[in-house]
Amino acid sequence: MNNFRFHAYTDIRFGEGCIKDLNSAMLPFGKKVLLVYGGGSIKKSGLYDKVKELLSDFEITELAGIEPNPKIESVRAGVKLCKENGVQAVLAAGGGSTIDAAKVIAAGACYDGDAWDLVVDPAKIGEVLPIITILTICATGSEMNKNAVISNMENNEKLGTSSHDMIPRVSFCDPTYLYTLPAMQTAAGTADIMSHVFEQYFQKNTGAFLTDCISESILKTCIQYCPVALREPNNYEARANLSWASTLALNGLPTAGKGGAWTCHPIEHELSAYYDITHGVGLAIVTPRWMRYILNEKTVDQFCQYAENVWKIEKMEDKFCMAQKAIDRTEKFFKDCGIPMTLSELGIDEIYFDKMAEKAVCFGGLENAYIALTKEDVKKILKMCL
Amino acid sequence: MNNFRFHAYTDIRFGEGCIKDLNSAMLPFGKKVLLVYGGGSIKKSGLYDKVKELLSDFEITELAGIEPNPKIESVRAGVKLCKENGVQAVLAAGGGSTIDAAKVIAAGACYDGDAWDLVVDPAKIGEVLPIITILTICATGSEMNKNAVISNMENNEKLGTSSHDMIPRVSFCDPTYLYTLPAMQTAAGTADIMSHVFEQYFQKNTGAFLTDCISESILKTCIQYCPVALREPNNYEARANLSWASTLALNGLPTAGKGGAWTCHPIEHELSAYYDITHGVGLAIVTPRWMRYILNEKTVDQFCQYAENVWKIEKMEDKFCMAQKAIDRTEKFFKDCGIPMTLSELGIDEIYFDKMAEKAVCFGGLENAYIALTKEDVKKILKMCL
Repeated sequence: MNNFRFHAYTDIRFGEGCIKDLNSAMLPFGKKVLLVYGGGSIKKSGLYDKVKELLSDFEITELAGIEPNPKIESVRAGVKLCKENGVQAVLAAGGGSTIDAAKVIAAGACYDGDAWDLVVDPAKIGEVLPIITILTICATGSEMNKNAVISNMENNEKLGTSSHDMIPRVSFCDPTYLYTLPAMQTAAGTADIMSHVFEQYFQKNTGAFLTDCISESILKTCIQYCPVALREPNNYEARANLSWASTLALNGLPTAGKGGAWTCHPIEHELSAYYDITHGVGLAIVTPRWMRYILNEKTVDQFCQYAENVWKIEKMEDKFCMAQKAIDRTEKFFKDCGIPMTLSELGIDEIYFDKMAEKAVCFGGLENAYIALTKEDVKKILKMCL
Repeated sequence: MNNFRFHAYTDIRFGEGCIKDLNSAMLPFGKKVLLVYGGGSIKKSGLYDKVKELLSDFEITELAGIEPNPKIESVRAGVKLCKENGVQAVLAAGGGSTIDAAKVIAAGACYDGDAWDLVVDPAKIGEVLPIITILTICATGSEMNKNAVISNMENNEKLGTSSHDMIPRVSFCDPTYLYTLPAMQTAAGTADIMSHVFEQYFQKNTGAFLTDCISESILKTCIQYCPVALREPNNYEARANLSWASTLALNGLPTAGKGGAWTCHPIEHELSAYYDITHGVGLAIVTPRWMRYILNEKTVDQFCQYAENVWKIEKMEDKFCMAQKAIDRTEKFFKDCGIPMTLSELGIDEIYFDKMAEKAVCFGGLENAYIALTKEDVKKILKMCL
């Protein structure tokens, strides 16, 4: 069991109607605010009007149009607005992309150079404006962590950056905001949550029993409630459990006492850097293939633990058979949620696999993953996804 | 599923040797520190010397001798020292009692009246000096929450108080400090952890699936590792898992989406207010009797969930039989850990049961508990404990 630091200091306000406390929660940070949001769904849903009404005594500058896989151009635009308007706090209303953009904007507002520097080299992040979030898509857990992923399409780069000071100060999570999420976003978001847990659960460390139990709790929650949310988009219990699962999956809990490089995320980041596909869809496609590829004598016991505790598969004499069963169930689950499960269905062929594999290994540090992967390994996994 | 706020902002430093960062972690709060500790075990273990060495450039005032079930007199002495010495931060090295005392000292240092006011009426707590903790006994979870329990033996009162600002800023949890814990403290501490979870798990609310899974994770961890720690006091994995379980049991996670008054704690508080017994021992005695007393048509399903998910008891046609089995296992577990399981063994008879029951109902708000209890109910439960 590794030593760890757990400091998820976000003030989480969770539940229907929690937004009512927005004004009092934001007041300590100052009244000059940059409101960051995406394609306008918050206008359709009425959330935009609600925020403006609640913050009627604030001075609000707006940055609309944050795209999925947020681009560095949007971040630069936000930084400019912050500097021009003396912004004191950044309020993100949206999903992971909007929140990630808001984080780097808040860091960029206190930095003299180009914001892309802060993505390439997190050590350059110094002061950060306070970040407040209102969650409308649950998936990335960005509302309670230090991470942000920004894309630069000029050079097909999608990179993660991170700073303890980019953890949001307050996050509002109202599960009813998720009622209008399209089925594919619900499914892809769930795949993202589950992948976050897999990346932390399948690691070399032993002895983090409680942490593993918590990871299994999150996975069971996804398996229990994603189908419910797809059948009944307005099911509060399903949306609430998925939302809380999403937050906990990446706030440090499932990695307490564990650690090591991730695998599917670096591989998927290359897919969406090249093809701008939905992150969760890419993860759902890569995950079961990765599991099959790394299943061996060293990993089989952890897969059997996963099989027994998450899927309630009965113990079998043949451990590999038991592990395979769990992997099959994982793949079938994603498929049943309506996610396209091959790259071919997305129109992706192997033309860039070589470059993508090289970058995944290099940026992802895959030599430190659960099972170390070379460029050739990654290419094989990608081919399994076709 | 209830709305909730989760804001456990403590910076947890966990693992062997984590104390090395004490100086840098405390620096932001100022160099005038009150060091609060208990009966001197930290001197025997070498922790006292280590702290003095690490903080050699700090100005340290000391308050030794915090007793189990900490007394208001100790708190008053600490407040006086803070005011006399212009203390800027309170460092508690010990278990729940020491940390609880430190919390009310830190609040009292910023309050003009008598510190007992802050115990009787938490609304009177205003500013609080920053609190840092070094954990040497795991049980109360005080290192990551807002609660403190203080006793006033003049009037046999043991009361809980609470303030969001009394949450420790930084807590150091080194599982190796637990190696020297006597077996009874290990067992009683585990009973305390489990009781915290039971109080939150057995509630009226439905739909908090993930929260229940996390509660079950903590319970399974206690059941898995307490026997190991008793057999092998220096087993790092066992101590580490119990320690982290203890912290998570009362930092807000097991109550996210749930809520309602607690039951066994208010009853036990009366026992230790009158007899100064070990809190965890009292809880272990009361818990299974309370479970038996409240088992009925309304509660049986939650007990069956507990039976299946925590004790892996197979589903039975007779739900009550299944629930009873889980309660029997709970009682046997405490007994096997070496805890005396009757009040008579502690020399307690029914002479004060009437007064104790009255106070438990009044201070505990037992009309809002999972199953509402009257004074007569509590007396019956206490008699079952004889």
